[in-house]
Amino acid sequence: MYEKQILLIPGPTMIPPRVLRAMAAPSMGHRSEKFSQIIKEVSENLKKIFQTKNDVYILTSSGSGAMEASVVNFINPQDKVIVLVNGKFGDRYAKINERVGAEVIRLDFEPGVPADPEKVREILAQDTNKEIKAVFVQQNETSTGILNDIKAIKEAMGDHPALLIVDSISGMAVADFPVDEWGADVVVAGSQKAFMIPPGLAFITVSEKAWKVNEQCRSFNFYFDLRAAKKNLAKNTTPYTPATSLIIGLKESIDILLEEGLENIFRKQLKYKEMVREAVKAMGLELLVQDEKYASPAITAIKVPENIAWKDLNNLLVNEFNVMLAGGQDELKGKIFRIGHIGYVHEMDLVVAIAALEMALYKLGYPVELGTGVKACQEVILKYKEVN
Amino acid sequence: MYEKQILLIPGPTMIPPRVLRAMAAPSMGHRSEKFSQIIKEVSENLKKIFQTKNDVYILTSSGSGAMEASVVNFINPQDKVIVLVNGKFGDRYAKINERVGAEVIRLDFEPGVPADPEKVREILAQDTNKEIKAVFVQQNETSTGILNDIKAIKEAMGDHPALLIVDSISGMAVADFPVDEWGADVVVAGSQKAFMIPPGLAFITVSEKAWKVNEQCRSFNFYFDLRAAKKNLAKNTTPYTPATSLIIGLKESIDILLEEGLENIFRKQLKYKEMVREAVKAMGLELLVQDEKYASPAITAIKVPENIAWKDLNNLLVNEFNVMLAGGQDELKGKIFRIGHIGYVHEMDLVVAIAALEMALYKLGYPVELGTGVKACQEVILKYKEVN
Repeated sequence: MYEKQILLIPGPTMIPPRVLRAMAAPSMGHRSEKFSQIIKEVSENLKKIFQTKNDVYILTSSGSGAMEASVVNFINPQDKVIVLVNGKFGDRYAKINERVGAEVIRLDFEPGVPADPEKVREILAQDTNKEIKAVFVQQNETSTGILNDIKAIKEAMGDHPALLIVDSISGMAVADFPVDEWGADVVVAGSQKAFMIPPGLAFITVSEKAWKVNEQCRSFNFYFDLRAAKKNLAKNTTPYTPATSLIIGLKESIDILLEEGLENIFRKQLKYKEMVREAVKAMGLELLVQDEKYASPAITAIKVPENIAWKDLNNLLVNEFNVMLAGGQDELKGKIFRIGHIGYVHEMDLVVAIAALEMALYKLGYPVELGTGVKACQEVILKYKEVN
Repeated sequence: MYEKQILLIPGPTMIPPRVLRAMAAPSMGHRSEKFSQIIKEVSENLKKIFQTKNDVYILTSSGSGAMEASVVNFINPQDKVIVLVNGKFGDRYAKINERVGAEVIRLDFEPGVPADPEKVREILAQDTNKEIKAVFVQQNETSTGILNDIKAIKEAMGDHPALLIVDSISGMAVADFPVDEWGADVVVAGSQKAFMIPPGLAFITVSEKAWKVNEQCRSFNFYFDLRAAKKNLAKNTTPYTPATSLIIGLKESIDILLEEGLENIFRKQLKYKEMVREAVKAMGLELLVQDEKYASPAITAIKVPENIAWKDLNNLLVNEFNVMLAGGQDELKGKIFRIGHIGYVHEMDLVVAIAALEMALYKLGYPVELGTGVKACQEVILKYKEVN
């Protein structure tokens, strides 16, 4: 049964069989010529996906490790930083900065509300001595399904010298993010999201401007020291033994992404977002993110209806219908649940998930007419086929 | 061809088909009940392999990440530490400690010579104010194939309160290391060695005494903060998304290790060491580690014969005979090569490697009579069969 599970959490996502087969190959020496060729090819292709001319380094860690790398290589104790927080991962950026000893100017936004670029503009305008070293933000906040407007945030920063450091772990290859064009300095992504491979790899790119800042940084960290990553990538290798099987899977999954084409992927993700949002509305459920423009194309958060416990709903979904969605995190636990429509997801997987959700809600006494959510999905699918 | 390669580097090692199949399973939610059950089972089994009653935490990183964790959770800037160095990884422990800002008392030993417990005794005896916080050492130094005597080092520490922190990345499940009985405080291991799974996971255990030291530690690190690992393992989970597919592989590989039994594995590893050492001697080559007692059961380092270039030898081994051994590292580059006899290795794989080595040396004009090394291997195999 488990083998047919529809896994729609915001990572780890489902994995294409082609990638699973690639990863099942026998072990390969990580310092061999063959493996160096793979590192070279994958790194070049990652630049295409990040839309950057700068190196993209591969770290063997989960995304949080790359988030730490994006802090500790640029921020010294006592440095001032702005952290935009609209969920758990914004909060994590604040915590990592505090761990380093930075002075954190934390801008909190209500769950489901995007980060306001005007707030950034105001604070930077007051910073006449240019003491603020960086602005940290999630492109896509996984915990709430908010897509922040990175381009607008960069524009709001004007000519202030602070670095723009972006966690795009669940945003990269889902929503357009031309890193160089928009002027982001450091951007991180992770393997178990749109890259469709298991967790264990993270990716990070660094602008020339950020490398200059790095020269002044006394990092206490060893494993996430990006200078070592840079030095080794120039030789098509990594400073420490990398997760070889995951990198072999990554080579395959990036091929799949590039064959599909970024533009097509972004369009597909908008379709998925629309399918889920329309289905949710048709079923009479409430979306956490009201403003369509800022609704994530990767993850949709839905309020748990009154008188229904997420625990009961989840049990039915998993045990009766073999569909796994995600609950809320931290203070949103029990209040929302999330459908991840990211990674190796086919439109029919979402139809299955919505059909299962309808049945589970129905069994719990929620007033839903079976088929209404599915119908909304079908209408979106057909609309996109016509436009094409 | 690649699929039939005999990979005898000291990690990543070859992977049992049973583990490859397990890892090729569809993706699984890392916060699901099923995955928590796996974390629980694997963690309990890791305690058996570490021979400890304390928790063993699973980190998503390569071994160097766990080495960093074994430093930054216990050592503050300006703390005094002893680092025993008999190769590249001892040097790495010194570098990580320096990065943290510790005052490193570095004890270097010649390549191929074990760390001398008496040196530790001397230095600790002079430390009347008990300022030295820890002694760092490799159980098995991968770069030279030295097996240090951890038990003797602990005994030499006497009642000095310093922690004993051991990198057993290439030693765990190869040579006996009863962690609690020998009194090691912090011990790290890695996935791509005797655990026979791809790189990307590391393991670390912490004694009660070390947890007390941790309370006084102001770590700058976030991802490798073991307090978060401890808090989460109590709930059968991890603080950040773990490398799920590797953990599923680990469950399978630990089952294989426990089915075989630690005692049998240690005996097998001694046989492999003897096979390789006897073959090397029979072929007239020179071993880096002279003293049998301190020769690693995981890796054997061999001096590159005069008038032969490792690069040429390696090219023949890889391209003509499909056998991959490892070269020397850092200042031993070109001077030694290493046979890794760790992980999923069968005795006949070593016969193949020795036969290939004979032929490659022969082709390079080295005076070896074909079959002499192989014969020595065969004699060891038969001797062990008789004793059994």
